[in-house]
Amino acid sequence: MEPKEGFDCYGYAAHDPKGVLVPFKFKRRNSGPDDVVFRVTHCGVCYAEVTWTRNFLGDVMYPVVPGHEIVGVVTEVGSNVSKYKVGDRVGMGYCAMTCQECDSCKGGIDGCTTRRTRCFNDIDVDGTITRGGFSNLMQADQRYVVKIPDSLPSDLAAPLLCAGITVYTPMIRHGMNQPGKRLGVIGLGGVGHMAVKFGKAFGIHVTVFSTSVSKKEEALGVLGADAFVVSKDEEAMKALSNTFDFFINAASAEIPLDPYLRALKPHGVLVLVGAARELKFCPVNLFDMKYITGSSVGGMKLMQKMLDFCGEKGVVPMIETVDIQYVNKAIERMMGNDVHYRFVVNIEKSLKPE
Amino acid sequence: MEPKEGFDCYGYAAHDPKGVLVPFKFKRRNSGPDDVVFRVTHCGVCYAEVTWTRNFLGDVMYPVVPGHEIVGVVTEVGSNVSKYKVGDRVGMGYCAMTCQECDSCKGGIDGCTTRRTRCFNDIDVDGTITRGGFSNLMQADQRYVVKIPDSLPSDLAAPLLCAGITVYTPMIRHGMNQPGKRLGVIGLGGVGHMAVKFGKAFGIHVTVFSTSVSKKEEALGVLGADAFVVSKDEEAMKALSNTFDFFINAASAEIPLDPYLRALKPHGVLVLVGAARELKFCPVNLFDMKYITGSSVGGMKLMQKMLDFCGEKGVVPMIETVDIQYVNKAIERMMGNDVHYRFVVNIEKSLKPE
Repeated sequence: MEPKEGFDCYGYAAHDPKGVLVPFKFKRRNSGPDDVVFRVTHCGVCYAEVTWTRNFLGDVMYPVVPGHEIVGVVTEVGSNVSKYKVGDRVGMGYCAMTCQECDSCKGGIDGCTTRRTRCFNDIDVDGTITRGGFSNLMQADQRYVVKIPDSLPSDLAAPLLCAGITVYTPMIRHGMNQPGKRLGVIGLGGVGHMAVKFGKAFGIHVTVFSTSVSKKEEALGVLGADAFVVSKDEEAMKALSNTFDFFINAASAEIPLDPYLRALKPHGVLVLVGAARELKFCPVNLFDMKYITGSSVGGMKLMQKMLDFCGEKGVVPMIETVDIQYVNKAIERMMGNDVHYRFVVNIEKSLKPE
Repeated sequence: MEPKEGFDCYGYAAHDPKGVLVPFKFKRRNSGPDDVVFRVTHCGVCYAEVTWTRNFLGDVMYPVVPGHEIVGVVTEVGSNVSKYKVGDRVGMGYCAMTCQECDSCKGGIDGCTTRRTRCFNDIDVDGTITRGGFSNLMQADQRYVVKIPDSLPSDLAAPLLCAGITVYTPMIRHGMNQPGKRLGVIGLGGVGHMAVKFGKAFGIHVTVFSTSVSKKEEALGVLGADAFVVSKDEEAMKALSNTFDFFINAASAEIPLDPYLRALKPHGVLVLVGAARELKFCPVNLFDMKYITGSSVGGMKLMQKMLDFCGEKGVVPMIETVDIQYVNKAIERMMGNDVHYRFVVNIEKSLKPE
């Protein structure tokens, strides 16, 4: 396939900071010899769909077509594309392109560079604006596409491409896959519940921390966590002093970090994957060689490795599948933590040209 | 030497939260077969002398004899002591005993355990209260004593035992001794100026960050830093984005961390060694695998290694030597950052029985 004229697409876009998604027609750029074009079948709904439809960061170029947990079926491949062929099931996450020059890119963790192009609301290689997965067709450089294993259903694969990789990456990086380690998961939402699932698949001890006891039964009974702690219970938190190897904080709220830092063992790591605006802590609680770090998405090699692992071990998210016409309601419900645990839009079934 | 009756000592103690140090007579516990007794010649003045004379943490058992950067000459050794003999110059820091059971102790970083006995205001092995180095005689288990190299003068060695090891430990732990690395030092006091000195001795690039331009000439001209940045200069801070491998924050003030986190490269580490009460940051600034960690003092093996390095390379603090009768004024001046950069009390010259 040689570069061709941009092609017509349809999807859902927000036009102003109210963030309401409505049907929208647009053109994607010319496809090049390294591009894969695919028909979108499913797309997850992540908190980024709130941030960038409502312009929380002030950087939105309206109209914005969000969606970055994208699964589909290949319809065309460029002349340089050897890894994918028409009919393959593929996935795409947050990254549409990275610099390929920095240490992160050279080290195979390309998703972690600061010089990356997001798959929506960013400037594409030709100067046009990238549009995300709430649309009928998607295109991507073959380096930023992954193969969905046969054993993973498309709807369940979608949330792995952001929520999944967001926790899988730091879990692998920090050795949370070593049996005997103890992990605490703070915030049981789309991202947090995947941390519990991966933790159990890795054979480690997982404790869920929640502000309310209401999630206890599900955390222990359905997700398979080993323990549950109500984080507001000061006595219970104190009793955990120096007992955890890791915490993953998936909460977006401004929670106090000190109780968790005290619960870490020396050399322990608290990984932040939730985007709170500001967090506070007392530095003395880090003095015994404890660490706070952050992580966002991950590199493409790890993304493929994660999908293969999930396909093999049956590690999948808990989702609610909805039609595109329900997407605004889904986003609203997600903002109120009323999702169990990730919405996935069935694009294939519900998105029609209007 | 077999265990003997406790022995008489004299020194300076604070008797209440006003923190004024006055002459004080006391008994030290019986010395055991593993103990080294030494005549104190010099003792540094650290910010801990403020914290624990004034009872900031509410844990002071008055009267308190502070002082934990202690150098002296051995006068007696127990029957099991083989490493030291009468007449040796020795040093002692913050730790008088550690648990010897935890991973930190077993891994040779005994100073970093949470189960340690401080050399003052703590409960000693026999249940009595430990008393620090502002006194004529000191005793310590041989494991918590280090040898002062011949090339290090006693007064200059003293601050290495706390201020020195506090920065040397994380610098070694995180590989800040690899030429080509870039270090930023925040806060140019007793601890911070040692970070600059070690950084230059390790052959790395050192930038000093200060709230005021007044320290620029000395940072560059006297301490040998490579660059100086006024941290309040927002434009200058922004220009440093993604350029530092490490920061050491030796400031005790509640400074904003975000400008420094943004200035770190991916995988970069910000080490906190100053005891601010609370620090704030935005987690997104850690997402590119950046780290915040803390460190306090260090283990005994590293302490000896540091002293040998300092003796060999001539890495010594800048100090003002004072008499014990000046110690209250010295502490007051230190509280107002009016010290250049560490007070050391010449105990040998000025402390007399009263």
